[in-house]
Amino acid sequence: MNNSAFRALSYGVYVLSTWDNGRPTGCTVNSVMQITSSPATIAVSVNKNNYTHKCIERSKRFAVSVLHEQSAPDIIGTFGFSSGRDTNKFDKVDYSVKGMMPIVDNAAAYIVCEVEKTLETDTHTVFLGKVTDADVLENKPPMTYAYYHNVVKGKTAKNAPTYIEEKQEKGKWVCSVCGYVYDGETPFEDLPEDFRCPVCKQPKSAFVKK
Amino acid sequence: MNNSAFRALSYGVYVLSTWDNGRPTGCTVNSVMQITSSPATIAVSVNKNNYTHKCIERSKRFAVSVLHEQSAPDIIGTFGFSSGRDTNKFDKVDYSVKGMMPIVDNAAAYIVCEVEKTLETDTHTVFLGKVTDADVLENKPPMTYAYYHNVVKGKTAKNAPTYIEEKQEKGKWVCSVCGYVYDGETPFEDLPEDFRCPVCKQPKSAFVKK
Repeated sequence: MNNSAFRALSYGVYVLSTWDNGRPTGCTVNSVMQITSSPATIAVSVNKNNYTHKCIERSKRFAVSVLHEQSAPDIIGTFGFSSGRDTNKFDKVDYSVKGMMPIVDNAAAYIVCEVEKTLETDTHTVFLGKVTDADVLENKPPMTYAYYHNVVKGKTAKNAPTYIEEKQEKGKWVCSVCGYVYDGETPFEDLPEDFRCPVCKQPKSAFVKK
Repeated sequence: MNNSAFRALSYGVYVLSTWDNGRPTGCTVNSVMQITSSPATIAVSVNKNNYTHKCIERSKRFAVSVLHEQSAPDIIGTFGFSSGRDTNKFDKVDYSVKGMMPIVDNAAAYIVCEVEKTLETDTHTVFLGKVTDADVLENKPPMTYAYYHNVVKGKTAKNAPTYIEEKQEKGKWVCSVCGYVYDGETPFEDLPEDFRCPVCKQPKSAFVKK
């Protein structure tokens, strides 16, 4: 079996959000799809180790903010490479409450759901949600997972179903938190001291040379 | 609720295939995602009215051929706009048997699964399959659903979860089988009599003026 075949599947890039006892929380996900059109239902796959998983089990509600190609990459870093156990991720982005759920402002669209059913696997739960609210926010091309990898040069969080251990290029400076590989024209050593990882906003000191 | 929000979700374009008592059959789908990485599992959503749905229930196996941007558009038409009840769809395309399943040759990759679980909704079943074989076929960019709509100018089959009734442009010639809108430079009336719909291969007579 050649695991590279899985990379040919297409996905978007989404912030999955919910409430944690009145506090908004969430994580970056790729695995979202519409299942039925009338009534509209959406499925999302979430790793059981993600704090958001626990919160959706409790609240029985979730929202999906659909990122677009111009959405700030640090949204992905904030929601993808730290845990809602330790940080208030929504403190770091502009958001609104729509359909009673926290929604990232800098997004193409949002969909709000009530959990109807689940499908359990060893490591992930597929939540099937009935859509209770949805709208378009910014009319820009939705970000695909391929765009995130090829243009934003982003990496995959270890909890994602699509995670495959990636070989870093020797001699490159790599963010130790999110795996972003620096490939700018200015040598890494000459970057200003206030340089931060464009994906997860970690300081220059978080980078290691491979 | 604004249903247009659902169009911001990203998908690929796939031929879902299985055996129908020794005869290969299948349909075009968009809703495929990886659920777990180890062991690898894949979820696919299929309308219960699709003949392929019945065949997967019987065979407990399915395969996904991942189409790429250069895959022949008539593959999508053949598998998307006719029923395996009435036609031997695989007679119209080149295919191979890999991992004991029928796979479309002109594709980026394939994934073969055994059904492990299902999640039922009113109109669709989500089949969760354990991957038993997978490989890369042609190293070309996978076709996204957006690419199919925007570049191939393809339409959505009525059984798809993503189907929204589309407003056709007045005065245009539209394929009555698959909904393809002709917008070539040659006036439709002047096209040769052997012109066929590039998506579903229906003859010129299948077109109607809106």
